[in-house]
Amino acid sequence: MYENMIVIDRQAPESLQMQIRRQLAICIVNRQFPLHEPLPSIRRLASDLKVSVTTVVRVYSALKRDGFVMSKRRSGYFVSPDALVDPGRAAVGKQRAGATEPARVDYARLFRGRSFDRERVVKPADLLVRYRYPFACGLIDPSLFPLARWRECVRDAADVVGVGNCATDFSETDDQILIEQLIQRVLAGRGIFARPDEVLVTVGGQQALYIAIRLLLAPGETIGVEDPGYPDAVAMARMEGINVQRLPVDDNGLILSDRLNRCKCLHVTPSHQFPTTVTMPPARRSRLLELTRQHGQFIIEHDCESGVSFNKTPPKALKNLDRWGNVIHVGSLSKSLLQGLRLGYLVADREFVREARALRRYMLRHPPVNNQRSAALFLQRGHYDRFVAKLTGIYSRRCDAMHESLERHFPGAAVKPEYGGGNVWLRLPEEVDAGILRELVEPDGVFLETGGFTFSDERSNRNHIRLGYSVIDEALIAEGIDRIARAVPKARGADSAPGNAPQGESLNGHRAN
Amino acid sequence: MYENMIVIDRQAPESLQMQIRRQLAICIVNRQFPLHEPLPSIRRLASDLKVSVTTVVRVYSALKRDGFVMSKRRSGYFVSPDALVDPGRAAVGKQRAGATEPARVDYARLFRGRSFDRERVVKPADLLVRYRYPFACGLIDPSLFPLARWRECVRDAADVVGVGNCATDFSETDDQILIEQLIQRVLAGRGIFARPDEVLVTVGGQQALYIAIRLLLAPGETIGVEDPGYPDAVAMARMEGINVQRLPVDDNGLILSDRLNRCKCLHVTPSHQFPTTVTMPPARRSRLLELTRQHGQFIIEHDCESGVSFNKTPPKALKNLDRWGNVIHVGSLSKSLLQGLRLGYLVADREFVREARALRRYMLRHPPVNNQRSAALFLQRGHYDRFVAKLTGIYSRRCDAMHESLERHFPGAAVKPEYGGGNVWLRLPEEVDAGILRELVEPDGVFLETGGFTFSDERSNRNHIRLGYSVIDEALIAEGIDRIARAVPKARGADSAPGNAPQGESLNGHRAN
Repeated sequence: MYENMIVIDRQAPESLQMQIRRQLAICIVNRQFPLHEPLPSIRRLASDLKVSVTTVVRVYSALKRDGFVMSKRRSGYFVSPDALVDPGRAAVGKQRAGATEPARVDYARLFRGRSFDRERVVKPADLLVRYRYPFACGLIDPSLFPLARWRECVRDAADVVGVGNCATDFSETDDQILIEQLIQRVLAGRGIFARPDEVLVTVGGQQALYIAIRLLLAPGETIGVEDPGYPDAVAMARMEGINVQRLPVDDNGLILSDRLNRCKCLHVTPSHQFPTTVTMPPARRSRLLELTRQHGQFIIEHDCESGVSFNKTPPKALKNLDRWGNVIHVGSLSKSLLQGLRLGYLVADREFVREARALRRYMLRHPPVNNQRSAALFLQRGHYDRFVAKLTGIYSRRCDAMHESLERHFPGAAVKPEYGGGNVWLRLPEEVDAGILRELVEPDGVFLETGGFTFSDERSNRNHIRLGYSVIDEALIAEGIDRIARAVPKARGADSAPGNAPQGESLNGHRAN
Repeated sequence: MYENMIVIDRQAPESLQMQIRRQLAICIVNRQFPLHEPLPSIRRLASDLKVSVTTVVRVYSALKRDGFVMSKRRSGYFVSPDALVDPGRAAVGKQRAGATEPARVDYARLFRGRSFDRERVVKPADLLVRYRYPFACGLIDPSLFPLARWRECVRDAADVVGVGNCATDFSETDDQILIEQLIQRVLAGRGIFARPDEVLVTVGGQQALYIAIRLLLAPGETIGVEDPGYPDAVAMARMEGINVQRLPVDDNGLILSDRLNRCKCLHVTPSHQFPTTVTMPPARRSRLLELTRQHGQFIIEHDCESGVSFNKTPPKALKNLDRWGNVIHVGSLSKSLLQGLRLGYLVADREFVREARALRRYMLRHPPVNNQRSAALFLQRGHYDRFVAKLTGIYSRRCDAMHESLERHFPGAAVKPEYGGGNVWLRLPEEVDAGILRELVEPDGVFLETGGFTFSDERSNRNHIRLGYSVIDEALIAEGIDRIARAVPKARGADSAPGNAPQGESLNGHRAN
C-alpha cells in the first residue's frame, strides 16, 4: 500500500533517499501512521517502493536522528509522539509536494449567513467521568444497562443470517422482527395500534422528525412549535426555509389559541412536554384533534420520553385518539435502550410511511441492519421490558429525591414530572442567568443544562434550567442541588450590567468547537 | 401493560366481558400479539384489567369458539393464525372504538406531484436465495465474509466502554479509532492524506453525498452530473430544487466541455465511473481541477468502489491532486466491509467538515456509535485489509470469466473494468430493451440490473445493462451469460411497436412496493 503514500520520481534531481525521507516525515507529522504500531518494516518498504534495503535503512536512520521516529529493540521503528502536528494548527507540510502553498477555498466565508453550525447544546462525551454531579438530560446510565443480555443479542444478531442481511439492501424494508416488537411492546403501551406498514424505522427520533417536517411542509409554509419547545424542530424548519410560529405553553401543555390557525403543521409533545415535562389532559387533546381536523392541519406528535413512565397506565399517545389520520407519531429507543444505537420510528398512515421510506432512501438508504436485529432480539426476549421497569423504578426514586431537594431550596419553582422521564424543569428567580450559574458550578463538578434556548425569547428566559437525573446517583442528588443553590445568588444575569452579556455562552451550555 | 390496550368503561351498557372480548379480538386481528408466544395468562389479564378471573375465562372461551385464539395444553392461549388480517387489506376493525369510520387524510393526493416515491432500483432482500444467477451490483457475498473475525470485533466493541459510549451523545465527534483507521488504511491507499478533523463519518456514502449536495448548492443553482451517471445524485438534487445539468462521458470518463461552466458543482466518479466503470486518466484529472479552480466550482468526488481495485497501485483519488480544497471526497465501506452497517465518510477541508457535522446533527445526530467501533476494530486488527485482498483476487477472476463470456456472445460490447469493482457495463444492440430482457431471463433464475435509468435520455438507452459479479459464483457466470445471450434476440424494444412500452417497468428493474 505504500506505493500510493510515497511517490518516487526516478528522473528527479533529488536522491531516492531524500524523496522517501521527506515524504515519510510529512506522513508522520500528519498522523498517517498509527502511534502504537510499528512503522512499515525496512524490507516491506524497500520491496513496495522498489528501492534497496540500504536506502530504507538510511531513511529510517535519518528520521530517527531528526526526531520523527524512534526504534524499539526487536520491534522496529515507531512514530515519535513529539513529531505529531497538533491537528488544530495550520497546514504544516500539508502538501506532500511541499512547494508553494496555493490559496484555498474559504469555506468559512462560503457558509457565512447560511451556516448550520449554530449554537447548540453540547454534551461532552466524557461527561460521566468528568462530573461528579452530572445533571445531564437524555442519557442512560451505562451501569444500569444489562450489558450481558445485550451482548448476547448482539452476538446472536451477528449470525450467518444477520450478516447475510447486512450484505444486502434494506432500503425498501425494515427488520420485520423489530417492527413487530415495536408494535407489540412499545406502541401498544402508548395506546397505539399500528400495522407493520404503518411503522418506519429511522436513524433515531431525530431523523423521524426531520422526515416528517420535510414531507409535511414546503418552504414558505408555517410550522407551529411550542414555546418553550424543542429547539431542533425550530432549527430543522429554518434549515428548510419553513416559517416558525411559536405557540405558548401552560401547565397543561400547548395552549389552543388562534395562533394555531396560521400553521399547516404543529410540532407538539403532549405526553411529556419538552422541556417543561407537563402532560396535556384528555379534554385538551380531543379539542386539539378536533381543531386541527377542522382546519386541515397536521400534527407531529413527538413522544420524547416515551418508554419511561412512572404510571402503570401512562397517559396514552395523542395518536391513540387520531381518527382522521393527521397525527404523525415520532419516537425512539434512545431513552429506553441506548441512544448511541440511533433507533427511532415514525408511525402514520400507510401512504405517509411509503413516502417517508422513499425520502429516507435518498437521505441514507436505511438504518443499519445489524442494530435493527440486535434491538429486535433485546425486545423479543423481554430484556427491554425488564430494563424499562428497572429504569422507571430508579428514576421515580431519583425524581422524588430531586424534587424534595429543590423544594427545600426553591419552593414551588420546580415542575415535578407527572408522566415520568428523566429530568425536572426548574424556573429560578428572574435575575438569575443559568449560563453564568452553569459556569459557577462547573468547578464543583456539577453539570447542568440551561433552558433559555428552548424559548423564542431567550433573553428574558435565561433563568430556566433542565436538571436530568438519569445518570446521577440518587445519593448525590441532594449534594449536587445544594451546590447549585449556593451558587444561585452569585449567578446574577448580565442584564443588570449591559454590555457584559457573554453572548452565546449563556445560551445553551458549551459551544460546539 | 394491558390496561392501555384494553380500556374498560364500567359505566357502559356493554358488559365487561363483551368489552374485553371485542377489544381483544381487534388487537388479535391487527397483529398486536406475537404469533408464537402465549397470549396474556388469564390471571395476568384479570389482575391488569381489575376484573374477575371468571370474566377472562369466559372471554377466552368465546374467542376460541369464534376462531380468534387456540389453546395449547399447558401453554395457555395462542393467536390463531387464521384470525390475522392481511396487512394489505383495508382497515378491518382498525378503530378500537369500532363505531362509524370517519374519512381519513388522503396522503396519496397530498404527495401527488411532489412525491419522493419515484421509480428506483430495487434489489429484493432475498435476492441471493431466489436467483441462481444473481448478477446484482453493489452487494457483498456473505459466504466470503470473515464472519468469525467480525463477530469478535462486534463482541469486543460491546464492552463496558463501548456501551458507555453508546449511552452518550456523539453528535460532535466520531469514533477516533475509526477516523484514524480510515485515514491510515482506506484514504492513504487512495492517495489522500487527511487529518482527523478533515474526515466525517456518515450513515453510508449516500448520506455523505446528500450532505455535500446540501452544503454546496442552494435551490436554483446547478449541479453537473455525468451522463450516464449516478441516478440518486440527480434525484437528491431535484428533491432540493437544484437544477441538474447532465454531462456526457466517454471512454476516459467525464468529457470536459463548455457545459461544465453552468455548474456550481460537479458530481464525478473519476476512478471508477458509475456506471461505465472507466477511469479518468491523469491528464484529464489535472485539467478538470484547473478548470474548476478557474471558475470557482466545487467537485464532489464520489469514490464508488473505492476499496476493491485490481491494481496493486490503483489510480489515486482526484482528491489527491486537490491543492485548492474544492474537492469533497465521498466514499463508504459498503463495497468492502458490509453495506448493511451503513458506514460512509466525507473528506474535505476542516471548515467544510465542521459545517457537514452540524447538518448531520440536525438530520440524525450521528451514525450509530457501536458500528463505528466494531468497524474500527475490524480495520485496526488487519481483517479489513485481508478481506479486501481476498475480494480483489476473487473479483478479478470472476471479472475475467465474465468478460470472456461476454466477448464470446457480444464481441466488443462490454467495458472491462480497468480499476476493479464488482460489475461490468454492457451495451446490447440498439433495439434491445433491457427491461424486457430482465423479465425474460427471470424465470431462468437470472437477476440483472438495467442501465437505461442512468442516462438523461432513458428512452434511447434501454439497451444497457449492469452485470455484477460480486455475489455470483465464478463457475456459474458462463451459464448465466449464456442464458442472457439466448434471450437477447427475443428482447426487442417496444419502440418498434409504439404504445406497448411497459412504462416504468423497463426503467430500473423492480418497482418499489
